[in-house]
Amino acid sequence: MTAYQQLERRFARLAHLDAAQGLLDWDQQTMMPDGAAESRAEVRATLNLIGHELITDRQLADWLDEAETDGTLDDWPRANLEAMRRRWRHANAVPADLVEASSRAISKCEMIWRTARRDNDFAALRPSLQTVLDLQRQIAACKAEALGVSPYDALLDSFEPEGRSAAIDGLFDELADFLPETVAAVLERQARGPDVARPQGPFPVERQRELGTRLMQAVGFDFQRGRLDVSLHPFCGGADNDVRITTRYDEADFVKALMGVLHETGHALYEQGRPADWLHQPVGAALGMSLHESQSLIVEMQACRSREFLDFAAPLLRETFGGDGPAWQADNLHRLYTTVELGFIRVDADEVTYPAHVILRYRLERAMIAGDLALADLPGAWNDGMAELLGVVPPTDALGCLQDIHWPGGAWGYFPTYTMGAMTAAQLFEAAGAAEPDVLPGIARGDFEPMVGWLRRNVHGHGSRLSADELLTQATGRPLDTAAFKRHLTRRYLDG
Amino acid sequence: MTAYQQLERRFARLAHLDAAQGLLDWDQQTMMPDGAAESRAEVRATLNLIGHELITDRQLADWLDEAETDGTLDDWPRANLEAMRRRWRHANAVPADLVEASSRAISKCEMIWRTARRDNDFAALRPSLQTVLDLQRQIAACKAEALGVSPYDALLDSFEPEGRSAAIDGLFDELADFLPETVAAVLERQARGPDVARPQGPFPVERQRELGTRLMQAVGFDFQRGRLDVSLHPFCGGADNDVRITTRYDEADFVKALMGVLHETGHALYEQGRPADWLHQPVGAALGMSLHESQSLIVEMQACRSREFLDFAAPLLRETFGGDGPAWQADNLHRLYTTVELGFIRVDADEVTYPAHVILRYRLERAMIAGDLALADLPGAWNDGMAELLGVVPPTDALGCLQDIHWPGGAWGYFPTYTMGAMTAAQLFEAAGAAEPDVLPGIARGDFEPMVGWLRRNVHGHGSRLSADELLTQATGRPLDTAAFKRHLTRRYLDG
Repeated sequence: MTAYQQLERRFARLAHLDAAQGLLDWDQQTMMPDGAAESRAEVRATLNLIGHELITDRQLADWLDEAETDGTLDDWPRANLEAMRRRWRHANAVPADLVEASSRAISKCEMIWRTARRDNDFAALRPSLQTVLDLQRQIAACKAEALGVSPYDALLDSFEPEGRSAAIDGLFDELADFLPETVAAVLERQARGPDVARPQGPFPVERQRELGTRLMQAVGFDFQRGRLDVSLHPFCGGADNDVRITTRYDEADFVKALMGVLHETGHALYEQGRPADWLHQPVGAALGMSLHESQSLIVEMQACRSREFLDFAAPLLRETFGGDGPAWQADNLHRLYTTVELGFIRVDADEVTYPAHVILRYRLERAMIAGDLALADLPGAWNDGMAELLGVVPPTDALGCLQDIHWPGGAWGYFPTYTMGAMTAAQLFEAAGAAEPDVLPGIARGDFEPMVGWLRRNVHGHGSRLSADELLTQATGRPLDTAAFKRHLTRRYLDG
Repeated sequence: MTAYQQLERRFARLAHLDAAQGLLDWDQQTMMPDGAAESRAEVRATLNLIGHELITDRQLADWLDEAETDGTLDDWPRANLEAMRRRWRHANAVPADLVEASSRAISKCEMIWRTARRDNDFAALRPSLQTVLDLQRQIAACKAEALGVSPYDALLDSFEPEGRSAAIDGLFDELADFLPETVAAVLERQARGPDVARPQGPFPVERQRELGTRLMQAVGFDFQRGRLDVSLHPFCGGADNDVRITTRYDEADFVKALMGVLHETGHALYEQGRPADWLHQPVGAALGMSLHESQSLIVEMQACRSREFLDFAAPLLRETFGGDGPAWQADNLHRLYTTVELGFIRVDADEVTYPAHVILRYRLERAMIAGDLALADLPGAWNDGMAELLGVVPPTDALGCLQDIHWPGGAWGYFPTYTMGAMTAAQLFEAAGAAEPDVLPGIARGDFEPMVGWLRRNVHGHGSRLSADELLTQATGRPLDTAAFKRHLTRRYLDG
């Protein structure tokens, strides 16, 4: 067996461990009885440890060195080898005891965060968050040395391969310039526009579930290789050929669960569309978080908040819930789906104000990782940033810097991928529409194949073979920029 | 760290892998979409392989040798070490390529069996079943050498530690003598007795589920550490502190699902009652299949088909299904629950005729493993045995030697544990009633604590610390015999 073949075998084993973890995680969030939590944590820690041993094992380093001198590898195996090396670098950059200390600190901090947020008590969170931050800075320093990038970029790189803050700074600065006036104009235009009527419930969970299932099928979700279930926090998880999404129902409001289902369906299409021959290899994995988010946002924001979508969906909605009258007309539903509001909470934000929430967090976490912002000063810096970017100041930390789990959970470097995803979605959707004129007319008929077919060919099927820049350049003619996203917001919210 | 401590760490890791497998197996049978089957098989094969490597690793052999010279170990660690050695012997006796060949043959044969049974086509099954049998005989030979027992006993030993066919022969011969006249007498008595009225459905699934849940709670199932779900074939699985049972509902007949739930609840009580300090160690595991089956049968057969149980359950049944009239009276329901019938299918058999089905299979599989019975002669030998033991001859192989998955599935040596379990249940229940006079009166009130408390102390809490003989001797004053089982059948079916 060649070194490369050995590597394929080893990474397949790692993929199987990841699949087991994905299924156990899904189970934990949807099915597990409370009393199993501690045992489950032990099982997952063991699988983690086994995976860590498999990727830090000395033999693997030798195989990588040897395979990299192998001149016989074709395009895909060569890209696979690069993806293996990237994973190896991330896993081997950090000493095992630092990984373990960080896992423990995160578990503890997440628990404290739940209480602190509920009690609006940042002081209660600070000591454990300080520990998490200190360890993240140590991890960042280790990875920075191994990858030859800045500490923040080293963290970013684990979510967004080749993602660099120099590029993000430029994009986000452009958006930060564009957004305040745009938001103001949209709010003013909305205030002048017709009132939005809200369909009245209750909307029974079972009908919501049927509707979600029907729309998932229309969009292209393959139920032979996936499921829809319920969890407190919606997610897309599971394993290869077994992609499981969740939502959460509210009988007073069907829009949230439905849009959540469509969002997760976008993630799921990416997972279900990965290259079949490489499913268990690094090159067959989804590329990174911004591309992943772009796939959820193409479905949720670009396709399913379009006016065209409501031509298809409004009759379905009326039929499902027995709805009747002005509130159930496509135009009104479209206004409801595209209402813009200034708010404090990121996860409740619309697509126009969302980037401001992300830019704020990105700037703050960069400063904290760089050591330029102390945790003691975080609440103040948060509120200043909200005032600057959105013109509102949260009345409490619970509505401010305590709202997200990412920092307590150790996901430093993750936030920018949300808005990079939104920009990527706009750029891809625009290119898809240019290449396939039937994309929007198809959506109006409930036929998503023109859009999804284009995404399969231009995004999903590539796995991790190309970098994000390469993929976007092939698919849209240029690397990521803000132009399509700005055009999208302007067209939908100011010209429409 | 001492060698023993190293072993504890290694076996905890193996227990975590087993827990992951248990949860993935549950998922596969209850939740998994069809298209995931192949990927799932790969994931589980990888976890299997990792486990196999962990237990066949040379270091483990050294630690075992060293720990066995350690004079400082107390009672439980010493028993744990013995249980570790037993697992090690079984895992290391068989070469890896034979294990793998056998797994592959079993997967293939199980698939063919499904079709062959449906089509009543033994000839179609024979070649793949021959391969499975040949490999089982090789495995048996390897294990026989390692364990110093006969080939059949070596297979039996993996389901029933220390189980030996010499002992089983004696017990089963006694039953084979006892049963034909007993069955005849029961049938004759039944024919003379009052007609049994059958409650008329439909019995909505949701009501059946509520009733099952309520009875599980009454019996003592801990829903904080377990679940009830639906699968094609009912089972008890899951993981430590996460015991999951399943059933299958039929709206025309509530008795089957309900008795299935109670049966699996018995298994689950054993799992939930294992010693908490040793949950992830071999000594904390359930002892063997006959003791496990005894726990399901104590709940299903001894407790919940008793006349006393119906005092508690009949009002609940009437309330649940809105039942009324003679069919819903406790006496009639008890007659319904204890109806004896000659039949061809083991899984449909009542407790009086069930042992005949098992004795037949036990004798046939012993002969096949010994090389004394060729597969070509199996259908004829099956029918001869049915004629001898039950006085009926199946009209087709589908109702005969094709009915069970055990042989295609590689579970040779498993069958006798069903009837050993039935005998063990009778012996334990009799002893429990003698020690705790409130066992049966408690059941009549829906209070299972007197019975379950006794089982916790005398069975569940011991894990694998004692052999089956030791456990039974401590709990009942003697090793397994047929006396209590015969008394039970006579009392319930002839004297009652």
